[in-house]
Amino acid sequence: MQGLTNACLYTNPDQPGAAYGYAGMGPYDGGQAQYVRVPFADFNALKLPGKPYDEFEEDFLLLSDIFPTGYHACELAHVRPGSSVAIYGAGPVGLLTAHSAFIKGAAQVYIIDQSETRLKIAQNFGAIPINYRNGTPSKQIKNLRSQNPLLLGSMRPGEERNLGVTSAIDAVGYQAKSFTSEQEDPTSIINDMVEIVNYGGHLGIIGVFVSQDPGAPDPDRQQGIFKLPYGKIWEKGLSIGTGQTPVRRYDWFLRDLIVANRAKPSLIVSQRSQLERAPEDYRLFDFRGIGEGKEFTKVVLKPNI
Amino acid sequence: MQGLTNACLYTNPDQPGAAYGYAGMGPYDGGQAQYVRVPFADFNALKLPGKPYDEFEEDFLLLSDIFPTGYHACELAHVRPGSSVAIYGAGPVGLLTAHSAFIKGAAQVYIIDQSETRLKIAQNFGAIPINYRNGTPSKQIKNLRSQNPLLLGSMRPGEERNLGVTSAIDAVGYQAKSFTSEQEDPTSIINDMVEIVNYGGHLGIIGVFVSQDPGAPDPDRQQGIFKLPYGKIWEKGLSIGTGQTPVRRYDWFLRDLIVANRAKPSLIVSQRSQLERAPEDYRLFDFRGIGEGKEFTKVVLKPNI
Amino acid sequence: MQGLTNACLYTNPDQPGAAYGYAGMGPYDGGQAQYVRVPFADFNALKLPGKPYDEFEEDFLLLSDIFPTGYHACELAHVRPGSSVAIYGAGPVGLLTAHSAFIKGAAQVYIIDQSETRLKIAQNFGAIPINYRNGTPSKQIKNLRSQNPLLLGSMRPGEERNLGVTSAIDAVGYQAKSFTSEQEDPTSIINDMVEIVNYGGHLGIIGVFVSQDPGAPDPDRQQGIFKLPYGKIWEKGLSIGTGQTPVRRYDWFLRDLIVANRAKPSLIVSQRSQLERAPEDYRLFDFRGIGEGKEFTKVVLKPNI
Amino acid sequence: MQGLTNACLYTNPDQPGAAYGYAGMGPYDGGQAQYVRVPFADFNALKLPGKPYDEFEEDFLLLSDIFPTGYHACELAHVRPGSSVAIYGAGPVGLLTAHSAFIKGAAQVYIIDQSETRLKIAQNFGAIPINYRNGTPSKQIKNLRSQNPLLLGSMRPGEERNLGVTSAIDAVGYQAKSFTSEQEDPTSIINDMVEIVNYGGHLGIIGVFVSQDPGAPDPDRQQGIFKLPYGKIWEKGLSIGTGQTPVRRYDWFLRDLIVANRAKPSLIVSQRSQLERAPEDYRLFDFRGIGEGKEFTKVVLKPNI
Repeated sequence: MQGLTNACLYTNPDQPGAAYGYAGMGPYDGGQAQYVRVPFADFNALKLPGKPYDEFEEDFLLLSDIFPTGYHACELAHVRPGSSVAIYGAGPVGLLTAHSAFIKGAAQVYIIDQSETRLKIAQNFGAIPINYRNGTPSKQIKNLRSQNPLLLGSMRPGEERNLGVTSAIDAVGYQAKSFTSEQEDPTSIINDMVEIVNYGGHLGIIGVFVSQDPGAPDPDRQQGIFKLPYGKIWEKGLSIGTGQTPVRRYDWFLRDLIVANRAKPSLIVSQRSQLERAPEDYRLFDFRGIGEGKEFTKVVLKPNI
Repeated sequence: MQGLTNACLYTNPDQPGAAYGYAGMGPYDGGQAQYVRVPFADFNALKLPGKPYDEFEEDFLLLSDIFPTGYHACELAHVRPGSSVAIYGAGPVGLLTAHSAFIKGAAQVYIIDQSETRLKIAQNFGAIPINYRNGTPSKQIKNLRSQNPLLLGSMRPGEERNLGVTSAIDAVGYQAKSFTSEQEDPTSIINDMVEIVNYGGHLGIIGVFVSQDPGAPDPDRQQGIFKLPYGKIWEKGLSIGTGQTPVRRYDWFLRDLIVANRAKPSLIVSQRSQLERAPEDYRLFDFRGIGEGKEFTKVVLKPNI
Repeated sequence: MQGLTNACLYTNPDQPGAAYGYAGMGPYDGGQAQYVRVPFADFNALKLPGKPYDEFEEDFLLLSDIFPTGYHACELAHVRPGSSVAIYGAGPVGLLTAHSAFIKGAAQVYIIDQSETRLKIAQNFGAIPINYRNGTPSKQIKNLRSQNPLLLGSMRPGEERNLGVTSAIDAVGYQAKSFTSEQEDPTSIINDMVEIVNYGGHLGIIGVFVSQDPGAPDPDRQQGIFKLPYGKIWEKGLSIGTGQTPVRRYDWFLRDLIVANRAKPSLIVSQRSQLERAPEDYRLFDFRGIGEGKEFTKVVLKPNI
Repeated sequence: MQGLTNACLYTNPDQPGAAYGYAGMGPYDGGQAQYVRVPFADFNALKLPGKPYDEFEEDFLLLSDIFPTGYHACELAHVRPGSSVAIYGAGPVGLLTAHSAFIKGAAQVYIIDQSETRLKIAQNFGAIPINYRNGTPSKQIKNLRSQNPLLLGSMRPGEERNLGVTSAIDAVGYQAKSFTSEQEDPTSIINDMVEIVNYGGHLGIIGVFVSQDPGAPDPDRQQGIFKLPYGKIWEKGLSIGTGQTPVRRYDWFLRDLIVANRAKPSLIVSQRSQLERAPEDYRLFDFRGIGEGKEFTKVVLKPNI
């Protein structure tokens, strides 16, 4: 009874852990459907208030995966009251990581993306937007902090070497792009995280990395092998947390926060669609609506719309 | 290096722990003065931003004692994200306990007092006010919760037995009065806390109790001995945390939250006075301004006003 | 998914928590039987190595209750590497509390009883025996520690005030006797624990207290109300942990320790008996075999003996 | 007051953290001397029992660095009661990591080296020796575990996929050799750790890695950049802890364990020498006495021998 539902040994013959519609995660089709069978429902289901509380329906929906995932990212990165946090990626998970960081008492949350639409939503959660089109994130963040006289005024001589953040989170994963081009660069983020995080700080890797990617451009990457700044990680004494989310560890109290009006994950939803529109809407989500007007930050499919 | 500055063995020949102007806490006069000597200043002083950040001066002042104390109360009572919390007493410490509970991610915070002025400030922090003049606090809170269809809708059959709260905090101490009269009744609060807290819940006792009170009305109380519902505490499997605050464990990150505008403890301050007015203002604070107009919730003395 | 199986809300209509053959703990007869039905067996059962590993059978048996209970007592009392621990009561639970304290890295474990047979078993686990017939336990322990030049030599001036222990555990409960007579005195233990534990220390109450005891000699005790040294508890800043054990939180790794030969709870077993002998053997256990020769420290019933 | 003495911001102008005689760790010469100046002695010194307790002198000596370091390795790798642990390297730190793992309640500790002398000492601490000359460590350990019917008998169907260990520790660092040749291969160890550790497991990197090594054979390694199995680390959901030891967080209670005869770090000492013999003895230690008779596992210099 360790609570690691993310590494469940009973639900998937291929490897530990199972999920709906996720490569290698067991014989479970995707969950974007009118009806879904719930395996081990006596354990897996979470009780929710029903009608007439439609106002919370979209918040509750996000409890099934990405809100707990955003919260887990904060656990991986040891976010706690007073933490300063840098989140790379303002997609749905990154945004709910920012929301979760404040729930856990963070002081400052910086969030990094190139989409002004996404960064705007992040600001609604209280985060400080960093558009990486304007420069390397770690440099932008250090600039902001070194120009803040309140932070500088709180430091004794020597402490100004800890002008970075206490936690940094990768909410993108191996499909990350370079900060300066459109090229894939899976390690651009962790390299910058190691720059921005303070000595004794914490890295959380919630963005997915895989050990088998036959389509990758070279043999190392096909096996999930990457060059990492291991020496600097060690010198700074960082911790790294990785992996899937044990959803059931968090969903019940995140629900309680929704019901108490202290969490509002549905702020990230940009579109409500019919089930039939899923392929098209997902395509637009993938391309972030670029060049097609309104950006899709999160699509909710409603079978009965 | 255990960080228990509240039980420091070096600063006080009489007993562990030392404080300014506190009975039995060592040879240190009170801190309400124009200048104060800081023993072990190389360890005890906290760096703060100076002029021109006067807007934070009163927030910083509260870092020296009661803001960390409110935070410590939440630690004693294991407050965490999603917790429901009942705080007995809306004096300065109770109010900053409410503030701290939300910093730590609490879902609901109920705060109990008889002063509408104090309860109003608590509401500014997001707490739900319970005036004990209107009935036993545990009953009022259970009523509120049992009439909340969102809470009921989140419960599976059997769970409705946990309609109380997960944490309860005594922010009054041994000078508590009965809920129904003006008589002193030091155990009225813990008795009601044991009623309102759920199985497996947590009690935090930040209000002061002492082992020697020569003026108490009977020999037991003179030695700090009280009748407690020990059987029920055990049956419910409660934990109890007690004692003074290790201020230095918390002050540095509470400062960081003030500087980030995510904590505003100075919301409790009702009066700014000259040093000379201290005796009179403290008398009014003691009597809570009752019958004298504006209530004194917290007085800040300014030597140079 | 909080893991509090001790306060399960689904298995018992009367109150949270259920157990075999325990007053108020649900419609489950006692477990001293040839066959037992296991409710919620998909969750409740623990996998164990079967034949031919008979050498561990008695160790595994103790996983069903008292070994996890002894471990839980250490959790309630925050036992950690380097802790000094005083355990009141060397019955089966007290003995396995001592065993668990060393598993958790305790430095010294003092165990208090009047039975030399039990104290002898405690010594086999590495504990230091304290026979309360020879004087108040807290005084005996402080004497031992104050005469230990290695402990004194480790203390800076002022620290000698912490010559007590960091954790104290009540493994007896409300049927405790006075240290000086054969009279029941349910608070003799907690009073002495508060004496022996250091400032900032921790109390674990694993011995049972109840809120309803119709046979008790006075109305307060009938409701589980006792006089406690609340003032001194607060002054010392103690924490108190109480209640039933969440067995499933511990049983799986205690099993792993048995299998690795690093735990041997069966050292406490004194008798193996046929099922038919249960009433007689339990009577002897109750009277601790006093006046009847060999003391019964723990009886294991074997249906097929 | 975070207790991170390993990343102290005040003692070293070059970078956070300071140590005697360690590259980049501040203006402090080595500690192998007759007299040593202790900077910030009011904070840094630990009180120890003096004469006539010479029996503990060598145990106490190891409190200044490598015993806390071994303990910290276990913290980095989340070792807890019931853990199974693989330690790579049976040098002084690896050996005291094994000792610490058992203090923290580990079930099995496997320790990997090529020196039978070192492996023998590890066995004295209770560890299971793995000589990597006999095959890849992860394969040897899995073989041992898969042939243990007690472990297999404790597993439900599906759990046999977790036949590895829960924690793995690198106690060698960047100067590691290949398991199959004498060539340096800094990532041979972490690659094998990722194989042997279970899903949801923990890696502790206590062996040193640096971000600047001008003598390294290629530009990447000169900057501490290495190829790591990042995809597999993520898939398995591992955590990684790294860095220097905050000695003062551990030394006081490790002292208490020595004094209580529950820790005996001096078991690793193989030689006591005069100060003058330091250069020669260190040379022999470096070469592990290979080809020169008795192996040097740990040399203690005694100025007054």
